[in-house]
Amino acid sequence: MGKEAPVDKLEWKISVDDGTLKKGILTPESGAFHGVWVALQFVIKEPICRIRNFLEKAWNLGVAEPKKVIHGLKVGLALSLVSLFYYMRPLYDGFGGNAMWAVMTVVVVFEYTVGATLYKCINRATGTFLAGSLGLGIHWIASHAGDEFEPIILGMSVFILASAATFSRFIPSVKSRFDYGAMIFILTFSLVSISGYRVDKLFEMAHQRLSTIAVGASLCIIITMFFCPTWAGDELHSLIHTNLEKLADSLYGCVVMYFTNNCDDDSSKKMEHYKCVLNSKAAEESLANFVRWEPAHGRFSYRHPWKQYLKVGSALRGCGYCIGTINSSMNSEFEAPDFLKKHLSNACITLSSHASNVLRESATVMATMTKSSNIRSSVGEMQYAVKDLQNAFLSLPNCYLAAKPLAPLDGDSKTATTTKTTVLSMTEVLPLATLVSLLMETAARIEDIANEVINLAEQADFKPVTSEKPIQ
Amino acid sequence: MGKEAPVDKLEWKISVDDGTLKKGILTPESGAFHGVWVALQFVIKEPICRIRNFLEKAWNLGVAEPKKVIHGLKVGLALSLVSLFYYMRPLYDGFGGNAMWAVMTVVVVFEYTVGATLYKCINRATGTFLAGSLGLGIHWIASHAGDEFEPIILGMSVFILASAATFSRFIPSVKSRFDYGAMIFILTFSLVSISGYRVDKLFEMAHQRLSTIAVGASLCIIITMFFCPTWAGDELHSLIHTNLEKLADSLYGCVVMYFTNNCDDDSSKKMEHYKCVLNSKAAEESLANFVRWEPAHGRFSYRHPWKQYLKVGSALRGCGYCIGTINSSMNSEFEAPDFLKKHLSNACITLSSHASNVLRESATVMATMTKSSNIRSSVGEMQYAVKDLQNAFLSLPNCYLAAKPLAPLDGDSKTATTTKTTVLSMTEVLPLATLVSLLMETAARIEDIANEVINLAEQADFKPVTSEKPIQ
Repeated sequence: MGKEAPVDKLEWKISVDDGTLKKGILTPESGAFHGVWVALQFVIKEPICRIRNFLEKAWNLGVAEPKKVIHGLKVGLALSLVSLFYYMRPLYDGFGGNAMWAVMTVVVVFEYTVGATLYKCINRATGTFLAGSLGLGIHWIASHAGDEFEPIILGMSVFILASAATFSRFIPSVKSRFDYGAMIFILTFSLVSISGYRVDKLFEMAHQRLSTIAVGASLCIIITMFFCPTWAGDELHSLIHTNLEKLADSLYGCVVMYFTNNCDDDSSKKMEHYKCVLNSKAAEESLANFVRWEPAHGRFSYRHPWKQYLKVGSALRGCGYCIGTINSSMNSEFEAPDFLKKHLSNACITLSSHASNVLRESATVMATMTKSSNIRSSVGEMQYAVKDLQNAFLSLPNCYLAAKPLAPLDGDSKTATTTKTTVLSMTEVLPLATLVSLLMETAARIEDIANEVINLAEQADFKPVTSEKPIQ
Repeated sequence: MGKEAPVDKLEWKISVDDGTLKKGILTPESGAFHGVWVALQFVIKEPICRIRNFLEKAWNLGVAEPKKVIHGLKVGLALSLVSLFYYMRPLYDGFGGNAMWAVMTVVVVFEYTVGATLYKCINRATGTFLAGSLGLGIHWIASHAGDEFEPIILGMSVFILASAATFSRFIPSVKSRFDYGAMIFILTFSLVSISGYRVDKLFEMAHQRLSTIAVGASLCIIITMFFCPTWAGDELHSLIHTNLEKLADSLYGCVVMYFTNNCDDDSSKKMEHYKCVLNSKAAEESLANFVRWEPAHGRFSYRHPWKQYLKVGSALRGCGYCIGTINSSMNSEFEAPDFLKKHLSNACITLSSHASNVLRESATVMATMTKSSNIRSSVGEMQYAVKDLQNAFLSLPNCYLAAKPLAPLDGDSKTATTTKTTVLSMTEVLPLATLVSLLMETAARIEDIANEVINLAEQADFKPVTSEKPIQ
């Protein structure tokens, strides 16, 4: 309550280790200058921080998926090639003329996978051709209909065809295959039908323009197919393969975690892998759409059963939901008592290890593209493990009774009833019953997955494994 | 074994109702002509059939979602307006000049929702402006660097910037907001930097081109916003609302079906509704991306908490997985005996009806955009129903004992043991235990959903329900 220090000075005291007390006064820098300095620091630091974060993210992405960096370089290469080509020999009138169509084609058509690039090229070509011919026809009709009717015919035709084509893009079968083509159709048709030129000049221009587009498109196709190609087929194949392994990790990880309570960072990360599987539907479908446009490549023939991949993917998600439910039901409010957990622990862990094995065998079939007989035998082992788990669960009360001293049972009926009540405690049984039946359900779904993979191996005509035993 | 009829004639006999027998000979048309006719029929019928199917699908889609037809008409309108505008007064040199930029802008930028259209317009404008300025700079530097270095500088700059911009499109934060802008950036930069014009002419051209693009873009924005607008916000809001109702239908439907075995077509269709919820992640995310660009509209202010919608959506999916597992575990190999089912039937149906109620109350909160106190009370009721179900399940053995004649229990211990074994049959308990714990899990997740909806109501500042009781 004595004399106060001036407001702009702050006293400080520090007691140092040797017992002495250091004192001092903080003199702030002159107020206005200091405020500006802080504001400036904030204004500079904040964006620098953001940019650094962004660059860090970009760097991590590039390290994790170098294919995406390569894609960037491929686009850069294609664009500088086509730019320089037209820069060196300005065919018509440079920028604004036809060279820009080549550049535009490269920018718009070059996609990450070969399939997507081909899809866009083919759609662009077909859409342009159809709309061009139709546009020329309408143009010819309109120009012969007299000055009054010309704009009406043109306007009406643009309105009707653009509306119909735009609506058609919502129809699933069109959307999955011809979405881009429909857009190009609308664009070209409008451009051609409203053009003020005579038809013969239009033909000449169309020829020039189409040849420029062809240069751009073929450059894209050559670079995308022969310079570190990223095939949609490869991507789809390896997506399914990774998802099989992720599910195997997840399932085994979460069952072992439940029974051993041993949860390190790595295994709890693996347990969450099933979520990737649940979220990969959109990626699978778009890849399956693009793969249709790819020629035979690498290990995949032209008639590779890509549709079957979607079935495997959907079976995988079905199993993923189950594993998700197992994961969350383990955190339920009822905790199973340790002696019951111990009783079922072996059977559960064995089942989950066999189930993961089936998934890993399926992953191996995908990776090596061979018909393996192991997959069937491991499904058999899994089914045995399911039976064992069932038996272990069904024998639960008897085992527990056997473990109890049997003496009281020889006594009066009241004691017997008490024992019964203990044995029957549903609170104790509930969490384990849930786990057991979810594991059985998961096993059933894993069998579905295995069947779909076996179907895939049949349909794709995978080679049988070459036996390592010499024929005697 | 007698005389055979000639091969090209087939006898026919029909016994008519009145007992008489009608006879005749089928004379086939002359062979070659017949074959051609069949082939022709096939060639004509097959495509006609396909076209009819396609048109039927399109018609059904149009009837189910008239908004999509309206979108088609809007695009048609915008295109014919812009076409006629430039057709009537060819500003510069008609087609091939600047008019095409207006047409192209309309075709490329006009999207289904207002948000998506604005996203594309703003991205296009920003991308063009940035790339244009940078391109002019590079162009100026290159033109002062001498004839040898000019193509090198241009080629290198196109390569580096195009690669970097293409790669940046893979970074999630860029992908969700600036994907289209990055593409336009690459396009414009390449076009400007390789152009053979002097800088002052470039400025003039850029001005003309930008004004044409502005005409197209503003026409799009006007038509999309003021002529039957489809707001991404509305779509997202009603998607979440429908999903809430679908889950409620699914859950109640499948529990009732299990206990009453009453399965008509309509209810079994409703039971599958949870699948739509599981598949709507991609739609929710893209709508949430687009809604960022929309101004305040209708019932939604500018600061409407759209991110919270994604949280509700993810809670919905979490619950959907559970319902999916319930659905499939009902078809498990172990069938619960009828007397046990009957015992739990009421509690299960009550719980599922209360749980559906919570979902329906949440749906009402969304639909009416009011803070309802009913949602909290129905969560309370659901929690009571959970407790009831737990008790019903835990009392299962006792009830069953009570139902049995108690007489044998007074006998010797052997009889008592037999009774115990009957009571404890895990095969009978297993399916019901699973159902009970999955229902409890589902209830827990529905509570999450309700909490997220309540959070949403708080954050969005929904109005409280106006009490209907007069203040006394």
